[in-house]
Amino acid sequence: MATPVKVYGPPVSTAVSRVLACLLEKEVPYQLIPVNMSKGEHKMPEYLKIQPFGQVPAFEDEDISLFESRSICRYICEKYAKQGNKDLYGDGDNPLVKASIDQWLEAEGQSFSPPSSVLVFQLAFAPRMKLKQDQGAIRQNEEKLKKVLDVYEQRLGESQFLAGDKFTLADLSHLPNAHYLVNATDMGELFTSRENVGRWWSEISSRDSWVKVVGMQETA
Amino acid sequence: MATPVKVYGPPVSTAVSRVLACLLEKEVPYQLIPVNMSKGEHKMPEYLKIQPFGQVPAFEDEDISLFESRSICRYICEKYAKQGNKDLYGDGDNPLVKASIDQWLEAEGQSFSPPSSVLVFQLAFAPRMKLKQDQGAIRQNEEKLKKVLDVYEQRLGESQFLAGDKFTLADLSHLPNAHYLVNATDMGELFTSRENVGRWWSEISSRDSWVKVVGMQETA
Repeated sequence: MATPVKVYGPPVSTAVSRVLACLLEKEVPYQLIPVNMSKGEHKMPEYLKIQPFGQVPAFEDEDISLFESRSICRYICEKYAKQGNKDLYGDGDNPLVKASIDQWLEAEGQSFSPPSSVLVFQLAFAPRMKLKQDQGAIRQNEEKLKKVLDVYEQRLGESQFLAGDKFTLADLSHLPNAHYLVNATDMGELFTSRENVGRWWSEISSRDSWVKVVGMQETA
Repeated sequence: MATPVKVYGPPVSTAVSRVLACLLEKEVPYQLIPVNMSKGEHKMPEYLKIQPFGQVPAFEDEDISLFESRSICRYICEKYAKQGNKDLYGDGDNPLVKASIDQWLEAEGQSFSPPSSVLVFQLAFAPRMKLKQDQGAIRQNEEKLKKVLDVYEQRLGESQFLAGDKFTLADLSHLPNAHYLVNATDMGELFTSRENVGRWWSEISSRDSWVKVVGMQETA
């Protein structure tokens, strides 16, 4: 085994925890490098060299540095295809399986994440940061999220997981925002009141990899 | 050659035009199937079977139906790897090239597209639909887009295109929103006033594939 890959950023960040869950599923050794965002370390010139948008996480492997959590996850699955959970991004031989994973991973990024991120920020983080909540944004994004979860409810009535009958990157990518919505806001019922979404959430959130990430968030 | 792939939706849609540009680059024969959105055809049960979110485009190939424009593009590049523009999504042998394309494709989806989509809707489509413009949203998203383009300006000073020295899916994915911003709003200067971004925009927007898509939009 070569040197561990490096992940820059705090595990409480949803994008950082997405990458950590992927590394744990793939059994890839990693080194977590703190970035003190309250001190503005993510806007320092050295950091901007590997993450030009000044966001977390940044990621380094032997010969590459990357940003954007979902593309880091794709890279980890392709580079470390032969180890850990081999179903996470398809088996490489069936383009249809991979296309289905990509499709639901993109649905997470384009449809689930935008309203979820607003709700997590407004309901879980704004109060801790003593910021005023935007009630209009909360109502608007709750409605958007309900419509997305209605589509998921139907899909998860047809298959056990979003991309088919196996847990994949598409499911994993939902964990960070869904975790905060269920456990740190009053929006949990949006998940648990829907039969299939509730069953799915219960399955994916109890995976060893995610339980470990939550432990890291709690001790951070 | 088997039957053409099917694309459902109008070419004026940014997401539909992204897929059309990709098909033209890859020289994949396609059939464009109209979806009359003003008549609500995208919310009809038959359509929702292939696009459960009720959005355009939907896509069908021999044995698969897909949604989400960026994952459709990824699928087209992988399925039709041996034809048309072979650099569009890397050559399959170098995971670092593909990771770089994925990273900038994700930057488009997560950082460039959200403010651009708001500006295109508010400045180009709202007036045609006789909807009131939201000046606060316009100001806020113009500021967000400027910051993204500042990062692009630096990146495009280091390499000819976003993912390296070749035109890829990462560049292509910017064409639909950038086209409306430059040609149908007063935001064009955000692109043309930045030296490297302006040079890049001029190169990518003059590709035969994109010129053809714009022609389809204009005759629609």
